[in-house]
Amino acid sequence: MLTKAQVEAARQRALEYFEKASIVLTDEEKANIEVADFGLGDLENTGLQLVTYVNTDRYCAKEMVLFPGQTCPEHRHPDRGGARGKQETFRCRYGEVYLNVAGPETKDRVSRPPQGDEEYYTVFHEIRLLPGEQYTLEPNALHWFQAGPNGAVVSEFSSTSDDESDIFTDPRIRRIPQVEE
Amino acid sequence: MLTKAQVEAARQRALEYFEKASIVLTDEEKANIEVADFGLGDLENTGLQLVTYVNTDRYCAKEMVLFPGQTCPEHRHPDRGGARGKQETFRCRYGEVYLNVAGPETKDRVSRPPQGDEEYYTVFHEIRLLPGEQYTLEPNALHWFQAGPNGAVVSEFSSTSDDESDIFTDPRIRRIPQVEE
Repeated sequence: MLTKAQVEAARQRALEYFEKASIVLTDEEKANIEVADFGLGDLENTGLQLVTYVNTDRYCAKEMVLFPGQTCPEHRHPDRGGARGKQETFRCRYGEVYLNVAGPETKDRVSRPPQGDEEYYTVFHEIRLLPGEQYTLEPNALHWFQAGPNGAVVSEFSSTSDDESDIFTDPRIRRIPQVEE
Repeated sequence: MLTKAQVEAARQRALEYFEKASIVLTDEEKANIEVADFGLGDLENTGLQLVTYVNTDRYCAKEMVLFPGQTCPEHRHPDRGGARGKQETFRCRYGEVYLNVAGPETKDRVSRPPQGDEEYYTVFHEIRLLPGEQYTLEPNALHWFQAGPNGAVVSEFSSTSDDESDIFTDPRIRRIPQVEE
């Protein structure tokens, strides 16, 4: 569980990356940047900072920051009660991000699962995204992503987002953040 | 109808605004910026420059440039064959944009229909969007928008985009661009 101080520190750090990417946020968005440690308590290695611009019953748009080397752990978006799972497009805005999906393992891949968590990572077809480059994931496609050494800012365009239904490979993970009161 | 030279000039000019907004595009995106004059042949006053990042059967994301004072004319996105019309969110990234929707006419509003086209503009509830500010339009909501004196860069997040079904107040308008060969 993250402490309030940890969340606040991560927000301030995330703001530095939004500034590097010249992304303008409102004061309210800045104050409410979501800091997700996925319940692993190791934000530096496994985590994500995000701002959700809009999430209707039809589409969603978010802006995400990954700190240098930080990983969003492997997961997929399954169908939900007859409705198709989330389809999503990642577009790199700043830095570089390594997106891993199913397919032939990339030779000399750059991204590596966080140390000690290797057993919870199963797809290693690595797609490198530099600013202006993007990739679209179909529903239920396993994926994980990791920032390069300068961090990354990534836009996510998608169908409706419903974090509760995500399925992570690592059974220890809890997506819905819990913050110490 | 725009000439190829006019389209190319508008693309180059649009790139300047994307640069001001620090938005990175691929070379392919730069070469294919869509330049829409809505069939009126008066791009300086009525027009839009846009890059479509992704448009699936579920969601769409675009980046738009309006030159100083340029107007995207009044239109709406109706239901289509039983499917709900397009819902869309505009987020200002650079400059300022004046979005007009149905509602009480705004006193001392800044945006004005292009001269001579006043009869084709019917909604005057003006919403000013500065960088970081956004507004979501429900399907079938009449709207038009105009950039301030420094132009504007605006992100559009939406359900699937289908320009062919848009209904413009001005019957002279043809949304699907035609370029002189």
